[in-house]
Amino acid sequence: MSSSSTRYFSYVDWTGFSSENALAEAIFHELANETSDEEGITRECYSSGEDAALKIFSAVATAHQLEVLSDSASNIVVRMPEDDGHRAGHYIGSHADSVPKGGNYDGAAGIVAGLLCLIRLQQVQPPLATPVRLLMLRGEESAFYGRANIGSRALFGMLDEHDLSAKSSGSGSTLATAMEGVGINLAPIQLGKSLFDPQIAKSYLELHIEQGPVMIEQQWPAAIVSGIRGNVRHTRIVCQGEAGHSGAIPRTLRKDAVFAFGDLVNRLDEHWRAFLEEKKDLVVTIGMVGTDPKEHAISRIPGMLTFAFEARSQATDTLETFYQRFRTECEEVAHQHGVTFTFDDRTDTAPARMHDNVIERLSLAAEDCGIKPHKLPSGAGHDAAIFANAGIPSGMVFVRNAHGSHNPREAMDVDDLIKGTDILFKAITDW
Amino acid sequence: MSSSSTRYFSYVDWTGFSSENALAEAIFHELANETSDEEGITRECYSSGEDAALKIFSAVATAHQLEVLSDSASNIVVRMPEDDGHRAGHYIGSHADSVPKGGNYDGAAGIVAGLLCLIRLQQVQPPLATPVRLLMLRGEESAFYGRANIGSRALFGMLDEHDLSAKSSGSGSTLATAMEGVGINLAPIQLGKSLFDPQIAKSYLELHIEQGPVMIEQQWPAAIVSGIRGNVRHTRIVCQGEAGHSGAIPRTLRKDAVFAFGDLVNRLDEHWRAFLEEKKDLVVTIGMVGTDPKEHAISRIPGMLTFAFEARSQATDTLETFYQRFRTECEEVAHQHGVTFTFDDRTDTAPARMHDNVIERLSLAAEDCGIKPHKLPSGAGHDAAIFANAGIPSGMVFVRNAHGSHNPREAMDVDDLIKGTDILFKAITDW
Repeated sequence: MSSSSTRYFSYVDWTGFSSENALAEAIFHELANETSDEEGITRECYSSGEDAALKIFSAVATAHQLEVLSDSASNIVVRMPEDDGHRAGHYIGSHADSVPKGGNYDGAAGIVAGLLCLIRLQQVQPPLATPVRLLMLRGEESAFYGRANIGSRALFGMLDEHDLSAKSSGSGSTLATAMEGVGINLAPIQLGKSLFDPQIAKSYLELHIEQGPVMIEQQWPAAIVSGIRGNVRHTRIVCQGEAGHSGAIPRTLRKDAVFAFGDLVNRLDEHWRAFLEEKKDLVVTIGMVGTDPKEHAISRIPGMLTFAFEARSQATDTLETFYQRFRTECEEVAHQHGVTFTFDDRTDTAPARMHDNVIERLSLAAEDCGIKPHKLPSGAGHDAAIFANAGIPSGMVFVRNAHGSHNPREAMDVDDLIKGTDILFKAITDW
Repeated sequence: MSSSSTRYFSYVDWTGFSSENALAEAIFHELANETSDEEGITRECYSSGEDAALKIFSAVATAHQLEVLSDSASNIVVRMPEDDGHRAGHYIGSHADSVPKGGNYDGAAGIVAGLLCLIRLQQVQPPLATPVRLLMLRGEESAFYGRANIGSRALFGMLDEHDLSAKSSGSGSTLATAMEGVGINLAPIQLGKSLFDPQIAKSYLELHIEQGPVMIEQQWPAAIVSGIRGNVRHTRIVCQGEAGHSGAIPRTLRKDAVFAFGDLVNRLDEHWRAFLEEKKDLVVTIGMVGTDPKEHAISRIPGMLTFAFEARSQATDTLETFYQRFRTECEEVAHQHGVTFTFDDRTDTAPARMHDNVIERLSLAAEDCGIKPHKLPSGAGHDAAIFANAGIPSGMVFVRNAHGSHNPREAMDVDDLIKGTDILFKAITDW
């Protein structure tokens, strides 16, 4: 793949900026220009938005005399001209896609950091013994096809028939069709073949904006990710009580779905608090809550309420222990309030450990750059989890960001991005 | 108004039943025949269903040589032939309408009891000094026009422009049009004039099925109503927190609308329990609960939740005290969870006291009939509240009923209705 034929190359002199800061700003500006939606930006994977972003990144790389290639899953690899790709190297990875009407930094920040690292490395003499490559991944977000990490899963033979036949909530095409549309040969992917030899990667390093408020709150410009939380979920739980006239049924004879739910939520909150006191990593969310609108009346005791349950932790045993507490409390509440709970299928996503040695190297690098190496779990999933679970030593750097992610209000300061890039660059050059 | 022209008169010999039980069964059977809907029965007020029920009741009265008249709000009065209506009397009242797809006994049971009392009184020699009249009221249910007790409110000048211009959720016509359609002269009603002189009523007595499960639970066939609960309500309260990524925001930085709501519900439940321990009359309902479906995602911390609040009590000060606790707890929860609560207009319905002397007379009558005079508050509103608040000594008898009301599963045993009728009849004849 070459970007020489696109207009992204033609009207910006990507080598003409006076600072890394200015170059990064210009890349984000160009991304916003080319992938903006009614609100925010949209870079649908295997579609025009993601393609546009990849072309901008490729144009920057090419302008800096870096080599740009497509891998067999149509992810883009950027490497030094002297790198023939045969030796094991460090991979800096991030994703080019976004959720619909999302923010400009989720994914793109990591690619910009990788580009800046490679541009810096061209000035390093003698060149590093170990090659460093940037992997610009497609399809990290689950928003369009329901499945996250499509680009990295494709590399490790982790997409099944169900994934490939899913239809995009945006373009409407199936994932298989969309992947073929960008020139991917689906045959080995359908067979579940691995397209990426883990031996070729000495490490996988990913920089990402923080998607929560911790670093803003703590005033940390950059931090080291300690692990990626897994989760246990139910999408729909039904709390079934008994409807009745709100004026005519005394407290002791009620089977009130809402009071039962309130009791359950409080019990979970108490367990959650206790888990945190024991220094266990845990976040709990009860969402998608509702009584039945068809039965709504001011004088009706609600007979039914549905809700979703999710717990996330870096530790599998914490997830399991909390889940069992949850089920026990459901039984207890059912008994006390005369209601029943019915559960849809439980789904599990395993946590991913960041590699101890990689965490250590990133922490030392941060200290050398004058940045305190604070540790932070990632609540959201990342491609780094796929690489880590494939046995590649993996690590992540988070960059401070306001207003969370997946919305147009994402706000990262490019100064913070440069600090995160410094950590990555220092870790790689000191490896 | 006369029912002689209707078919209800023509094919049932209403005087030919061997027992009150059989007569009552036949009336309910005929009602179900003539007002059945897809499921349950529908007797829309000032419309065909209510008219049909009134015609059946009138046919029974006429067959028993009772006089049937329409009052100036098109409610039907049944009286003894010798009663010229000029002297103060006892009024037995109940309503002929129903909610859509409701049950056969709500309202009708009280009218049947009144008919049975008048039929019995014809056998009493010498006749009672005080006349006894049956008032068959229209429009007690709020289901069609949003306003309850329309028929009795019309009598006391308590319908305003807003009420009269409301459109029926059934027929679609305005209340004013519907009332004119049954021959009511609206002019005095629009002027808020009272059409019923409270001096003409020595008492107002109403028999009704219980709309809750207490009497079934306690095995009481009939009971005396101690008072009619009033209520304080908000239809829509917004708990506004902050949405966010469910994996990325730690417990202490969340502004989770659902956990805030769970906390609030639990605090209210605790206050409710304490009020009951202090022997205060209170029921509390939190209904119509929901997060915003447009924002539903398994990985989203719910930023907003709406709910309705209702407290009912026979005591105004209990309502006010509990309401103030509720608002204080909302403030406390808002503070602790970082959320805000926004309230729509508060609405109040005053409790109605049943008259002490009437309660006493009904209780003595019950004992004389061998029925323990258990007391029970009415959680639902009734026309008796309108008469009581107009200064007329009022009382109610409840009859045991399974499955609540306002649904096709209402289940009253006619034997219990006869027991309730015995209490009414005994109280009147001993007055």
